[in-house]
Amino acid sequence: MLKALGLAEKGRGKTCPNPMVGAVIVKNGRVVGQGYHKGPGSAHAEVAAIKSAGAKARGATIYVTLEPCCHTGRTGPCTEAIKTAKIKKVIYACNDFNPMVNGKGAEALRRSGLKVENGLMKNEAVRLNEVYFNVIKKKRPFVTLKIAQTIDGRIATVSGDSKWITGQEARVFAHKLRSENQAVLIGMGTVKADNPSLTTRHLQGNNPYRIVVSESMEFPKSCKLIANNKDHKTIIATTKRSLAKYSKIKKTNGLTFWEIKKSGKNRLNLADILQKAYAFGIHSILVEGGSQMATSFLKAKLVDKLVVITAPLFLGSGLNSIGNLEISTIKNAIKLKNYFRFQCGTDQVFVGYPDQKN
Amino acid sequence: MLKALGLAEKGRGKTCPNPMVGAVIVKNGRVVGQGYHKGPGSAHAEVAAIKSAGAKARGATIYVTLEPCCHTGRTGPCTEAIKTAKIKKVIYACNDFNPMVNGKGAEALRRSGLKVENGLMKNEAVRLNEVYFNVIKKKRPFVTLKIAQTIDGRIATVSGDSKWITGQEARVFAHKLRSENQAVLIGMGTVKADNPSLTTRHLQGNNPYRIVVSESMEFPKSCKLIANNKDHKTIIATTKRSLAKYSKIKKTNGLTFWEIKKSGKNRLNLADILQKAYAFGIHSILVEGGSQMATSFLKAKLVDKLVVITAPLFLGSGLNSIGNLEISTIKNAIKLKNYFRFQCGTDQVFVGYPDQKN
Repeated sequence: MLKALGLAEKGRGKTCPNPMVGAVIVKNGRVVGQGYHKGPGSAHAEVAAIKSAGAKARGATIYVTLEPCCHTGRTGPCTEAIKTAKIKKVIYACNDFNPMVNGKGAEALRRSGLKVENGLMKNEAVRLNEVYFNVIKKKRPFVTLKIAQTIDGRIATVSGDSKWITGQEARVFAHKLRSENQAVLIGMGTVKADNPSLTTRHLQGNNPYRIVVSESMEFPKSCKLIANNKDHKTIIATTKRSLAKYSKIKKTNGLTFWEIKKSGKNRLNLADILQKAYAFGIHSILVEGGSQMATSFLKAKLVDKLVVITAPLFLGSGLNSIGNLEISTIKNAIKLKNYFRFQCGTDQVFVGYPDQKN
Repeated sequence: MLKALGLAEKGRGKTCPNPMVGAVIVKNGRVVGQGYHKGPGSAHAEVAAIKSAGAKARGATIYVTLEPCCHTGRTGPCTEAIKTAKIKKVIYACNDFNPMVNGKGAEALRRSGLKVENGLMKNEAVRLNEVYFNVIKKKRPFVTLKIAQTIDGRIATVSGDSKWITGQEARVFAHKLRSENQAVLIGMGTVKADNPSLTTRHLQGNNPYRIVVSESMEFPKSCKLIANNKDHKTIIATTKRSLAKYSKIKKTNGLTFWEIKKSGKNRLNLADILQKAYAFGIHSILVEGGSQMATSFLKAKLVDKLVVITAPLFLGSGLNSIGNLEISTIKNAIKLKNYFRFQCGTDQVFVGYPDQKN
């Protein structure tokens, strides 16, 4: 199963809206076939593994990271392919919560006389497809909030200097995060302060969509996200009023515009932004900044995962990574669940899941 | 040498003003004696190891974590004891920078015909006695600044709630830190906010001296550090003026008072506090809070070591662990040298040495 999980991982960033899946076929204690899902329209992992095993699949056991599907989408049902190949036993890690599957795949296999087991390395398999499972459950994109800060929680000095807090390795890691998400989201403050490109130039990887949240649409003239939009991946989330006022900009540079509802406090409604993104086909968003955007997403309880890169520096007063969350007691602090850390160059990376009730 | 370092470690918190030292005697590949320094007046590590080896020391090699001394203090010189025991070879980890030794011990042994090597596990041996070496060099106590904070760098909520940010294991660790320092130092803000006892009640350990930095001396009536001073270990660092004004308190409870110079900004001069502590015989101070005291010590470049305990929590706005350091560029941020981290319960502990020029 560990091998199957490793195979599944190869599809990271490429399988959306499908899950990452890996499969290994074992006969008489030897691996006779393996495969993974490469993306929409490509063979499912089980079919790829059966193809690589050929006739050796007969009487074998298949280890698969997700419950085999039993419905016909772009490709045929995997349960049928498994039966046709005369596989004898299916061991899968976790159920596919997609309502079209969710136990029905396992049931179909059992009805056909196959032995079926599940739960092996379930936690790992659920985490592997955390985006896929969250999107099914919440019907909105999976939101990862990334923060790069000093140990004392600052992202810039009082005078606004922010380059560079984290080291080179951490910046490569940040670009990897971008390439694994379908979209990167920033606020207008970050556009004005940093004028970022939001590409994955530090490594070979997909460039994600770039969502700029801007009520005013008062972009600086040199704004890279508008000027360098050859790939037509810049999206501007703004108000109806700004769209009318700046109608000229709409005709240039292949920009996409989303008209977003306002929320009570005269700000753009973040849940509405996520709904627009979901309708657009975006299932994962990396919120990169700045402080105000991070704070708003946390306050709205719309952060699924937090990635905090901490550099071994102290700045004292400066721009805080997180602003006012209106939390008055330690008991009500936002806790990170299932968190872990790793070293990245000279920096530490904390990863966790905010324990907030929606 | 690793074994000798482990033996030396047993003396932690007990050897001041002497260094921690461990020694192991090896003959024909077997350990025949071992010892460590238990505290002032007790045998030095070399003498203890020689005693445990007895006649087997003849012709053996001694591994010692620090250069053997060559002067007579409370005990006789170790170089003489080594020669008398007919030890053949001395391997030590690092020089003793005490000007009375610093190479003279090694020289005396060589002159007597012994083989002498040094440098084995030098970094570990220097770190073991970082307090001792710093005190010799700087002629002031070694200052460790401890901070317990959320990931976003807060030590309390906006309304002042601070109990408890870190977990039970981290609080035991904090008490261990206290027991390893000769004194704990806090500001008046912490006295008023937390009314702490500053004991090591979570473990068996020495209770350190308790230094309260208070210009005003306006203590709350219930102040535990004044009321519970049976061990006469509470010290108040204050101004000449406050001492005169509150002459009554001076006669009670076995308190010690230090009259401290004021620095430019009408605050107590921290360097002068350290000088008073040094004259008092205190060689290690743990600065525990709060934010203002931490900031002042960092600004004055008087922090030798930083210990930051970070809980997997986010608070947003609140009391920052570090206030205004007047740093305007990332380039000038305070960097941690030789830093490392470890997990402590659910919290992470960062340890490092501020890279600040004095």
